[in-house]
Amino acid sequence: MDLKHLIIHEAARIDQVMREDIDRLADDLDPLLIEILNYGLFSGGKRIRPLLTILSARFFGDSNTDVYHLASALEYLHTATLFHDDVIDSGDERRGEATVYKRFGLSEAVLAGDFLHAHSMAMVGHYGGEAALSVFCQATRGMVDGEFSQLRNARNLNQSEADYFSVVMGKTALLIGAACELGALFAGADEHGRAGLRTYGINLGCAFQIVDDLLDYLGDTRKTGKAVGNDLMEAKMTLPLIYALQRADGADRSRLLEILSDDRARQECFQQVSGLIDKYHGFEDAGEKAKQVIGEAIAALPESAGDHSVQRSFLALSDYVLNREK
Amino acid sequence: MDLKHLIIHEAARIDQVMREDIDRLADDLDPLLIEILNYGLFSGGKRIRPLLTILSARFFGDSNTDVYHLASALEYLHTATLFHDDVIDSGDERRGEATVYKRFGLSEAVLAGDFLHAHSMAMVGHYGGEAALSVFCQATRGMVDGEFSQLRNARNLNQSEADYFSVVMGKTALLIGAACELGALFAGADEHGRAGLRTYGINLGCAFQIVDDLLDYLGDTRKTGKAVGNDLMEAKMTLPLIYALQRADGADRSRLLEILSDDRARQECFQQVSGLIDKYHGFEDAGEKAKQVIGEAIAALPESAGDHSVQRSFLALSDYVLNREK
Repeated sequence: MDLKHLIIHEAARIDQVMREDIDRLADDLDPLLIEILNYGLFSGGKRIRPLLTILSARFFGDSNTDVYHLASALEYLHTATLFHDDVIDSGDERRGEATVYKRFGLSEAVLAGDFLHAHSMAMVGHYGGEAALSVFCQATRGMVDGEFSQLRNARNLNQSEADYFSVVMGKTALLIGAACELGALFAGADEHGRAGLRTYGINLGCAFQIVDDLLDYLGDTRKTGKAVGNDLMEAKMTLPLIYALQRADGADRSRLLEILSDDRARQECFQQVSGLIDKYHGFEDAGEKAKQVIGEAIAALPESAGDHSVQRSFLALSDYVLNREK
Repeated sequence: MDLKHLIIHEAARIDQVMREDIDRLADDLDPLLIEILNYGLFSGGKRIRPLLTILSARFFGDSNTDVYHLASALEYLHTATLFHDDVIDSGDERRGEATVYKRFGLSEAVLAGDFLHAHSMAMVGHYGGEAALSVFCQATRGMVDGEFSQLRNARNLNQSEADYFSVVMGKTALLIGAACELGALFAGADEHGRAGLRTYGINLGCAFQIVDDLLDYLGDTRKTGKAVGNDLMEAKMTLPLIYALQRADGADRSRLLEILSDDRARQECFQQVSGLIDKYHGFEDAGEKAKQVIGEAIAALPESAGDHSVQRSFLALSDYVLNREK
């Protein structure tokens, strides 16, 4: 099966497992909570995190379908963080729909996030045992810690590549690393196997984020469905901009700093900032960095003990992450 | 040791275990997160929930000091819910100090709550295993569900005793029941022993909340340190008021409904509402209900397998919950 069909096929199975789970919960829980869970969970995500858990278990030759339950915990936790992120950012829209925060309110978004958080932990404990729970909680705590680094660094215009990756770890990579490691653990992989899959996932997550940040400057709006320039408007220090700021001097550097410090200029000077980033090879080198990181992801994969088609899926996923246009 | 000294003595030990734990975390985490955890955790709580876990383990003859780690998870989870409750209620003060929400901000309060939430789950999984995690997550999900019932019922002036207890379960009783059950589980108690301790805790929690709600009308401000009338101002439907509304008719009922529906009247007519509740024996019968519930708590305690002083502590705690004036 090619990657696109694999994603669609597995997403449908994951959705089914989650729907059955939420339906079971519906007997005991408040109808509004159930409505919010259905609204927030089934709004067209690609289910990449649970897919990685499932593939990672198969990579080690385990085809026990209980992995779908373990995998759904990744989607639950991811969705819980989206609910809370929207509260934090007062976010109105996500994937073209009103956020839970906007549609149902602040209390509802905080509480439904807490519910999914606890539910995801219970699932991981039940289907993965204590070692899996430890991996999962470690990732969760790391995600929160990363958000604190980001809060602290928000006004810092002199960020390094290391600062960027520290934020990306919390925002994206730790959970994707945990998704892969949990699948390996589920399949009974040894420490070497677990570490290999964790490193694959972390690097895949980092590359995903770098490409995401590149698309925010260079994406084709007709393909991505999103306007460019959001990160600049919010003064987010992503890799292309960090590279440009490190290299520009004199008038160029002053101009960049001036624009970044001014809410209005950040809205109006997107073309100028893009031009300056390009002049200092910010886009080019961020793209190279993504390639390098994907290389590290692939190099970390151990010998597959299972079906070789899984190895091919991992390679196809790496390729997709690197070359996607949306 | 009498109850007061027991509480002080054990609270100091619990605090020490938590401080060492947070200090260990400090090496790896953002300094602001650590500052918030220290601020929110060490602001003078009585540590009743962890105390109950410790006593419940001793009740079954287990004196392994690892129970302090398991017990601290109860305080972590409780504190996480306080952080989020303050976000939901825009709460400015707690125990005479600025809340985390007020002092550090909304993002910080949401995220630090999420951190403690995940951390508490990891502790329970590690020190209590999968069965303990399942009890703990079940209580957490029940707490959230109870908050949804409360949100849904907030504007309903025709509540029943059952509605009240359904809210109290989520707000107070489920977590206290889980605190007791986790101690029993830690000590290897059988299902009968676990259920007995869970029922003791749930009823203790319910009685605690009824008395809390009575003090909000009848408390001596010099002893409680809190003004009376807060629940009325927020139109909270507590047991004395529910009883009065069920029994009053004609002009008295109309007057109560009129006051409850008007923000300003609720602030100004505290004496009148108190008088009407008293006329319909709302306070008296809520007090009787608390006694009945405490009776059920004590009746649920199985034969103690351990030190009989623990049995005496449980009785003293019940007595304290029922007769406290602050």
